[in-house]
Amino acid sequence: MTQSTLTRSWVASANGHTDFPLQNLPLGIFSLNGSAPRSGVAIGEHIFDLQAARELFDGDARRAIDAMAGGQLNAFFELGRGPRVALRERLLELLAEGSEQQAKLQALGAQVLPLAADCQMHLPAKINDYTDFYVGIEHAQNVGKLFRPDNPLLPNYKYVPIGYHGRASTIRTSGTDVRRPKGQTLPAGQTEPTFGPCARLDYELELGIWIGQGNAMGDSIAIGDAAEHIAGFCLLNDWSARDIQAWEYQPLGPFLSKSFITSISPWVVTAEALEPFRKAQPARPGGDPQPLPYLLDTRDQAAGGFDIELEVLLTTAAMREQNLPAHRLTLSNTQHMYWTVAQMVAHHSVNGCQLQAGDLFGSGTLSGPEAGQFGSLLEITEGGKKPIELASGEVRKFLEDGDEIILRARCQRDGFASIGFGECRGTVVAAR
Amino acid sequence: MTQSTLTRSWVASANGHTDFPLQNLPLGIFSLNGSAPRSGVAIGEHIFDLQAARELFDGDARRAIDAMAGGQLNAFFELGRGPRVALRERLLELLAEGSEQQAKLQALGAQVLPLAADCQMHLPAKINDYTDFYVGIEHAQNVGKLFRPDNPLLPNYKYVPIGYHGRASTIRTSGTDVRRPKGQTLPAGQTEPTFGPCARLDYELELGIWIGQGNAMGDSIAIGDAAEHIAGFCLLNDWSARDIQAWEYQPLGPFLSKSFITSISPWVVTAEALEPFRKAQPARPGGDPQPLPYLLDTRDQAAGGFDIELEVLLTTAAMREQNLPAHRLTLSNTQHMYWTVAQMVAHHSVNGCQLQAGDLFGSGTLSGPEAGQFGSLLEITEGGKKPIELASGEVRKFLEDGDEIILRARCQRDGFASIGFGECRGTVVAAR
Repeated sequence: MTQSTLTRSWVASANGHTDFPLQNLPLGIFSLNGSAPRSGVAIGEHIFDLQAARELFDGDARRAIDAMAGGQLNAFFELGRGPRVALRERLLELLAEGSEQQAKLQALGAQVLPLAADCQMHLPAKINDYTDFYVGIEHAQNVGKLFRPDNPLLPNYKYVPIGYHGRASTIRTSGTDVRRPKGQTLPAGQTEPTFGPCARLDYELELGIWIGQGNAMGDSIAIGDAAEHIAGFCLLNDWSARDIQAWEYQPLGPFLSKSFITSISPWVVTAEALEPFRKAQPARPGGDPQPLPYLLDTRDQAAGGFDIELEVLLTTAAMREQNLPAHRLTLSNTQHMYWTVAQMVAHHSVNGCQLQAGDLFGSGTLSGPEAGQFGSLLEITEGGKKPIELASGEVRKFLEDGDEIILRARCQRDGFASIGFGECRGTVVAAR
Repeated sequence: MTQSTLTRSWVASANGHTDFPLQNLPLGIFSLNGSAPRSGVAIGEHIFDLQAARELFDGDARRAIDAMAGGQLNAFFELGRGPRVALRERLLELLAEGSEQQAKLQALGAQVLPLAADCQMHLPAKINDYTDFYVGIEHAQNVGKLFRPDNPLLPNYKYVPIGYHGRASTIRTSGTDVRRPKGQTLPAGQTEPTFGPCARLDYELELGIWIGQGNAMGDSIAIGDAAEHIAGFCLLNDWSARDIQAWEYQPLGPFLSKSFITSISPWVVTAEALEPFRKAQPARPGGDPQPLPYLLDTRDQAAGGFDIELEVLLTTAAMREQNLPAHRLTLSNTQHMYWTVAQMVAHHSVNGCQLQAGDLFGSGTLSGPEAGQFGSLLEITEGGKKPIELASGEVRKFLEDGDEIILRARCQRDGFASIGFGECRGTVVAAR
């Protein structure tokens, strides 16, 4: 691995301030001018077209690229860690300053390195099943406090990595508009619901996790093996209709309040790229129970967490018209996860549930404990009681039509190139 | 339509007591001796091989068969009602006694009509998303009573067709063994959970609904159009780990307590076959609210229900050894659905959630109000307090290893051929 070095790329835009330096190399599916979707790697402001450059790879690295044919990464995810690492190592060679292929690739120009701004991004994989967890303990506490001030966390929270099945059909990449959903809501003080557009539309800041190799139904993935089953990471906005949610969610959980759309950032940031930004899982507060044995692994305790800075920005239509800078809603970090990704995988499969390559997990909202760190408007405005004031003079309790939410993530550590995830954007459009 | 007549088939076994007379013609995916899965129609004790008989079809009927190539019915479901009806009408001609093709098809024998007993059934479609509803009001009341004797139904029940996202990856056809899941449970009177095999394994008797044509994200399916989006029906056993469920389900709903397996009967019984067994939706009890306008349609009120008799049988390993007859656990009916299938479709899509061909809905447990009609052991034994006595001398509070559950369904009406769904079976095997 040359990741810990600060090797530069001959792709100039990969060397400045970018989410995609040589050390990142996230994978995605793109198309250009209406071409069939194909696989690529983000590098600076460009996309390295893996199919176009296929002849420069051999062995496991070529096997990885061939598994991406068809415009989906599922079969590549299924190959597991070996081919993914082989692909990365060859990419690190090819794209490094002084690479033996530099002149040739530079001569090919946009044939192998189109500008990302000219490309259309697609979902990186066919998502078979989507599971949304709830491992952001500060969010669980903040939300719990709104309903149960004295007892915000339910008794199972510190034993069970709580999660539920989400809707796979409405997961979309960054940039897809968010149609305001309609549904039933119970007006305050009433006993009969009304029907209409959601009035309490919210975002949720989450980490997305792409599943690699799956397991057979009836088998479980041991926590010590979980890393082998994780293909990569993205940002995820779990758009939420709070008024619909409050009325529908008992006793079987959120349903239409979430299933209208879920947005993800299109690049799959690999575990290898994130390796330098691993952290110990934060120590459990005194008095918290130890995880049950199936959720406990010393390596996972020592390095199962991540230090990834997470940010949420808001612009309104008026702010964009006035060229005002985006309003930062949230600055948080993945260290607020009470359960690690490995614990999620072990828990999800402990009952024999089959995971498949291309399954997506959401972490749950990753809020911090302080003001400025809350990952949803529900928390920031305390359910609408404390509106936000914006530089445009507007106020917001929840999202209005025309509002755009932008999620970003960045990893920084002394001696290592800083990497990002690319953006996850979505603009609210009026209900039909 | 010749369905209302009692036309006989030249396939002799289709004329006696069978789930699959000429009037049924359910569709499925089968293979024979390890062949590639392909589409067929159940007729008596045989399967009519649609690919083998393709030349006998033209126009929309052939288009229907061609859409089934690849061993999945999704593209056929997507074609909608027209091609499905054309296929049915041609099948009614071809397989009727005196058909002009009778001699030719009889001469081909097992080449076009293999015995079902020789065939392996597969999932009829790639299931993109699976949603489990909760429309069995008697079940909701029976279960609610166990926890809230004075207030069994939550306030939203009579307004919202309650549902939640289920796990698609572990849906299997009849005959697949049910591995007892492991998980966390909270022993009575304790405050800390333990880990181990589920001790309260249960079945749930449900109707399954196959979605036909889908909708674009952001669009809704009006209740008056819902029938156009329903491809067919099956039986569904929503196996449930009650002890895991009780500990995990707050606040986001059931998760690992359900996701270890869901069993379905392999034949897709079409809306056309069920047409004679349509019923008015049972009148809402006095005092119940009218459905909100988006859930209200006069045609649906008049004929949106079904009269389908549902049955659950249990055999234990000891009972099978002693050749004892199966024990009937449940005799219920689809008339206990508080919401129609059209209401489920309209509700699911009202927020713009995209439905896709091959999505599967479960109805929720369809219990009746009386003893003998309860669709789960949770209800029958009142959570284990009233064990069942079996002819073998055994007792059951919940399912033991070796127990087999068999779901059946039958439609009967004077002047019409009786049709069934085929079985949905599953045998519990020990935890790993």
